Amino acid sequence: MNPVEIIIKKRSGETLSKDEISFFIKSYVDGTIPDYQMSALAMAIFFKGLNDEETVNLTFEMLNSGETIDLSEIENFKVDKHSTGGVGDKTSMILAPLVASFGLPVPMMSGRGLGHTGGTLDKLEAITGFRVNLSVDEFKKTLKEVGFAMIGQTEKICPADKKLYSLRDVTGTVSSIPLICASIMGKKIAEGIDGLVLDVKTGSGAFIPQKSETLKLAKGLVSIGELAGKKTIALLTEMSQPLGKNVGNWLEIRECVEILRDGEGAKDLVELTLALSGTMLFVAGKSKTIKEGIELCRKKLKTNEPFELFRKSVKFQGGNLALIDNPESYEKSKFEFDFVAEESGFVESFNNYEIGMVAVSLGAGRTKTTDKIEPKAGMIFQKKTGDKVQKGETIARVFTDLEKSIEPAKSRLAKSVKISKSYSQKNELIRNLIDKNGVHEWNDFC
Amino acid sequence: MNPVEIIIKKRSGETLSKDEISFFIKSYVDGTIPDYQMSALAMAIFFKGLNDEETVNLTFEMLNSGETIDLSEIENFKVDKHSTGGVGDKTSMILAPLVASFGLPVPMMSGRGLGHTGGTLDKLEAITGFRVNLSVDEFKKTLKEVGFAMIGQTEKICPADKKLYSLRDVTGTVSSIPLICASIMGKKIAEGIDGLVLDVKTGSGAFIPQKSETLKLAKGLVSIGELAGKKTIALLTEMSQPLGKNVGNWLEIRECVEILRDGEGAKDLVELTLALSGTMLFVAGKSKTIKEGIELCRKKLKTNEPFELFRKSVKFQGGNLALIDNPESYEKSKFEFDFVAEESGFVESFNNYEIGMVAVSLGAGRTKTTDKIEPKAGMIFQKKTGDKVQKGETIARVFTDLEKSIEPAKSRLAKSVKISKSYSQKNELIRNLIDKNGVHEWNDFC
Repeated sequence: MNPVEIIIKKRSGETLSKDEISFFIKSYVDGTIPDYQMSALAMAIFFKGLNDEETVNLTFEMLNSGETIDLSEIENFKVDKHSTGGVGDKTSMILAPLVASFGLPVPMMSGRGLGHTGGTLDKLEAITGFRVNLSVDEFKKTLKEVGFAMIGQTEKICPADKKLYSLRDVTGTVSSIPLICASIMGKKIAEGIDGLVLDVKTGSGAFIPQKSETLKLAKGLVSIGELAGKKTIALLTEMSQPLGKNVGNWLEIRECVEILRDGEGAKDLVELTLALSGTMLFVAGKSKTIKEGIELCRKKLKTNEPFELFRKSVKFQGGNLALIDNPESYEKSKFEFDFVAEESGFVESFNNYEIGMVAVSLGAGRTKTTDKIEPKAGMIFQKKTGDKVQKGETIARVFTDLEKSIEPAKSRLAKSVKISKSYSQKNELIRNLIDKNGVHEWNDFC
Repeated sequence: MNPVEIIIKKRSGETLSKDEISFFIKSYVDGTIPDYQMSALAMAIFFKGLNDEETVNLTFEMLNSGETIDLSEIENFKVDKHSTGGVGDKTSMILAPLVASFGLPVPMMSGRGLGHTGGTLDKLEAITGFRVNLSVDEFKKTLKEVGFAMIGQTEKICPADKKLYSLRDVTGTVSSIPLICASIMGKKIAEGIDGLVLDVKTGSGAFIPQKSETLKLAKGLVSIGELAGKKTIALLTEMSQPLGKNVGNWLEIRECVEILRDGEGAKDLVELTLALSGTMLFVAGKSKTIKEGIELCRKKLKTNEPFELFRKSVKFQGGNLALIDNPESYEKSKFEFDFVAEESGFVESFNNYEIGMVAVSLGAGRTKTTDKIEPKAGMIFQKKTGDKVQKGETIARVFTDLEKSIEPAKSRLAKSVKISKSYSQKNELIRNLIDKNGVHEWNDFC
């Protein structure tokens, strides 16, 4: 087969065969096809798309480029959650122990912060000593003994995706829906799961802000999951303001610890966490309906069990438990300041992308893969959309060790909030549920 | 500047600034921007195009990436012709001495065969000893003493184009009109010309077969030429059958020698050569109208002057003059066979791309840049579209040294001709003239 002919075929809008996709990806991984041909194909795919069959074939090619984890020795339905990424999105650390406390193993492989969004691995590593790079054997052992495990992708999983993802990142081809689908689902299927709940973000803090595009992504992800024999449900959720109160790696861990410990917390964060975990219970057959799953989770969160499981996991993966039991003891940032309202009124909206980028500038994220993260850096929001504010009142408290980031952060933050005389915009946090039968209104399920 | 942001800008259909184009091309040439980012941008340009201003900026970036030739020491208006490539297209070897015989220097830098089309350099090298790789000083000396010079592009001209063209060739991004425009015009402007006549091919043997696309290309080329201060006219011409009778490097030289020697030859080849050379005279101000230019050329071709100039050029550039004076003495091919009509009727049409590809398979072209060409290989057509044929009658005589090419060539050639009971299709050889004022009917000019 000729790589140029395959590129031209896709460029002309034709469908690539399974063999052509397989040849291209295999040759790319073994180095026979160079980066410049792969990037040309990726750009052609950006413009001409891939149909469902092509996307599934690409996903399985990703999957089969490396090892897959066999969790058949672990009993019960193994269910995971994956989010397309957001600002202050910390549901994983709450729902993993919560769902595991029902006896459902949660094998969770996560990523690092990317662009303006945070990453679960970076957050977990804010707990001094916490090891995210477990071997497959350690991963299985943790799953068996704790009930859930939160780790980074091993080197041997989906090497094709690793190579292609790095290339897409530098060639303007990240935001191609079929390429995103294949990248996410290849890795998730490789984990050894039986079912998956997807949190597909829409709004200003999402990678794909437009709802119509996000919906395409959600449908694509669900159809690949189902074609791979995994029960898959996606929720389309709003990411137009930080989720919960805290943004930044340690600050987010602290907010999770408080919710697990107290059984309550920021309304949006708790509501979304329960919706996702309730759906996980339903997917795993632990509840007859999603509504029932949510109610079971709501009750369980009031008990001590999820927090104890979280503590067990921190201990098992080498984290400093004293920080969990006494979050106030964490080292303080060198600088703190307030992001204040410049006028009185109601918080109409945030530019959540800007907030994510400010968090990065404070030290909470990376602009290059080699950058070091400062786990203490971030923000604690005291006001959310719909809240009344007085001029000069604090919207968020901001923490950083980087003095030079303070002034630019202040001016960017001031521009990232819209205050109006009355609050008109009312975005539902959870908009749709997407399953193999199509797109549904979320309100019909809860 | 960030290369990824520039790629995304073009991918989103926005206009790139002069500085962005300059940064991208300069960084690509110096290796700071790798091939995989250039190929992603080229594919984005394929889909989103470049406007006139962007195309001109790209052309000048190509031009300024290397040396330009200063021909100011050579008197008179320097005029060249460039063809977008075809099968049996050998007008250059006739019109260069013809136009030069009017005292107009023709500084002609040509290319090699590409895909199914032949290249002037390969044809000239069929004359044993003919040197196409002259230094700039030799080029100028030849121009002064002979009146015209036919050489290959020097290494130092448009290095950006050389690098980008090689990349486009292997990434499915050759057929982008703005990229073709910038590539052609960068090189032509670098030659030191005052004016240019373009032969833009349309039909089954052209690189861009669709007339509407070819017209876009012609308009783009003319507008860049004029913006660069060169008087530029394009003719849109039919390339749906081999031009003239002979296809193949030496066979084409032989046909040119016959026409120059006898003052006459295949109607289509002579007609197109006179149209192009007449337009060159007009562009150079040697005639008041194109029609007058054509008449001057027609008369001149009947004289001995153009042939003597051609002989002088062969001698000057090291070619074996005995082959020109006695073409029959050229070495014979090992195998000869006839491509015959399988039914009686009229030659309705040829698939000229197929004929070009058969010529390549016989040894007349390359499938890889490292392939060696067999100059004797090719075909002599005895029938052209509109001609009456009897079943079994010869359409073309075929020559090759490659025994294994014979059977596949026979079956491909049989499929490349359409014979019908009456001849209905009547394509004008020259369809349009495109100048800075727009698109005109050719018949209004001659």
